[in-house]
Amino acid sequence: MPADIQTIAVVGTGVIGNGWITRYLAHGYDVVATDPADGAEERMRKAVEQAWPYVDELGLADGASKDRLHFEQDVAKAVADADFIQENVPEIEDLKESVLAEIDRYAKKDAIIASSTSGIKPSYLQRGLEYPERFVVAHPFHPVYILPLVEVVPGQATSKAFTDRATAFFEGMNMKALLVRNEIEGHIADRLIEAIWRESLHIVNEGIATTEEVDQAFIYGAGLRYAQYGPFLTFHLAGGEGGMRHMLKQFGPALKKPWTKLEAPELTDELHDRVVAGCEEQSGECSLSDLDQNRNEFLVKLLDLVKDYWPEATKDQQSKV
Amino acid sequence: MPADIQTIAVVGTGVIGNGWITRYLAHGYDVVATDPADGAEERMRKAVEQAWPYVDELGLADGASKDRLHFEQDVAKAVADADFIQENVPEIEDLKESVLAEIDRYAKKDAIIASSTSGIKPSYLQRGLEYPERFVVAHPFHPVYILPLVEVVPGQATSKAFTDRATAFFEGMNMKALLVRNEIEGHIADRLIEAIWRESLHIVNEGIATTEEVDQAFIYGAGLRYAQYGPFLTFHLAGGEGGMRHMLKQFGPALKKPWTKLEAPELTDELHDRVVAGCEEQSGECSLSDLDQNRNEFLVKLLDLVKDYWPEATKDQQSKV
Repeated sequence: MPADIQTIAVVGTGVIGNGWITRYLAHGYDVVATDPADGAEERMRKAVEQAWPYVDELGLADGASKDRLHFEQDVAKAVADADFIQENVPEIEDLKESVLAEIDRYAKKDAIIASSTSGIKPSYLQRGLEYPERFVVAHPFHPVYILPLVEVVPGQATSKAFTDRATAFFEGMNMKALLVRNEIEGHIADRLIEAIWRESLHIVNEGIATTEEVDQAFIYGAGLRYAQYGPFLTFHLAGGEGGMRHMLKQFGPALKKPWTKLEAPELTDELHDRVVAGCEEQSGECSLSDLDQNRNEFLVKLLDLVKDYWPEATKDQQSKV
Repeated sequence: MPADIQTIAVVGTGVIGNGWITRYLAHGYDVVATDPADGAEERMRKAVEQAWPYVDELGLADGASKDRLHFEQDVAKAVADADFIQENVPEIEDLKESVLAEIDRYAKKDAIIASSTSGIKPSYLQRGLEYPERFVVAHPFHPVYILPLVEVVPGQATSKAFTDRATAFFEGMNMKALLVRNEIEGHIADRLIEAIWRESLHIVNEGIATTEEVDQAFIYGAGLRYAQYGPFLTFHLAGGEGGMRHMLKQFGPALKKPWTKLEAPELTDELHDRVVAGCEEQSGECSLSDLDQNRNEFLVKLLDLVKDYWPEATKDQQSKV
């Protein structure tokens, strides 16, 4: 636990806010939460209660306790003593801006302010702040108390010192803190998720398949692979001994085909080389054959694990939990 | 094992063809393979050898043996005695058409002919066949000998009897045979994979992130979820107590934002209702809370399993295999 962060304020206690709260508590922090909605405190405490068995199984820090969570109606009071403030209000630009301005006004000057925004660029959100250098986007993934990824996105006015402190803080909580070096709407992960989502909606909209068929088409094939390797290493391994180089040769022309509603970029020599070199760099000392065996060993174990948790295993019965 | 299928011919022994061969052998079939490329037989036998430990671990059928694999240079002879023929030549339309015509000419009249095509519609591929009623697309996922999904896509001229036989055959090999009821380029799964792929290429092409960063942004968050639930149930669960209905309310407007290069469909009332009803239908008797607990239980176990198999665990060392 970084010594400079002891108390955390969470502003907005929806699904994401409550997820953060659970993760912070599990890692031994004091948490002050605030939310103007009726019944917010009760829902928050229920959400933490329900999530607790899982963070307990993942391992609690010394002194971690649900009793170290306090609810405070007033935003100014909630953030006053916090070393780190996580904002999770709904994805409405004006609302985020006004709440962040309020946080900025009442927080300690060296407190880090992080926004969970899914899509808005940090440079946009920090424009109205008096101390914008301590603002970053820290975008997590549901369920926040289990999944390790957080995208850390500094804006143009963010200082490197604050970005580094935020990154160290998340890594101290057993998270994969991915520094997003270039701002873009949706950061990185949500652009991929949104691409899947939009294509899925097109398929359902055009009556090609039901939501269930789309889900089945994803989880029993590609989805299993994506728990381990991303889109690039997956294709690097699907290319046989030629790896990504062979894959681009064989499926490069398919980028022109109507295999999705999304137009692909031109596969220039430069893009080709960047992708091939990227995959080789990612593989480090591992040969394609090593990666291949590693994937197989994982998938065999994953299949054995997941078969009891797929929808068809649970659809017509109560969960075993 | 369906009694009407004993011998299988595999035409084209690249990564996908060899994957099918391994799966067929593991399930106790006799397999005859053919491929005109120099050294094809040697590469095929090596691929089967390397994959065998994994199918062995998944469980071999009685009598399953690598010795029941025969290589035959001549396509006509390779397919002559087969009850089921799987075509896996490169994704070039003219080439597929001419190879399928040759298979059609020499195969037994009641043999099923299946193509592994990633993207081409079956009605297009079956146009030139004398007996098009026994032709289906059967699109698998790499590694074919481990992943359970196969998309079964009948064309306009395919008979229901042959589609049903093909489906029963794949289910007999422990596969998830998903009937794709409406032909579309890329079937279903590859449209989603291609959407991820194209957006990933855009991100790398524009210099936003490296291939490794894109992969990290995917696997440590969304990728873990997709091993269990697809895009619809995932969002159904991210919406809190309101499920998909709440999610569409909160993130529906984001469909208009530039969060991916892909244009979304209009979120009409009809699409809204279809998606909400679809998710409710998929959930069966399970409440959102049941699904939520089921996902958490799975993810906690998955994290424990996958941590030793992620790229950073293996990057600078030989695989443990």
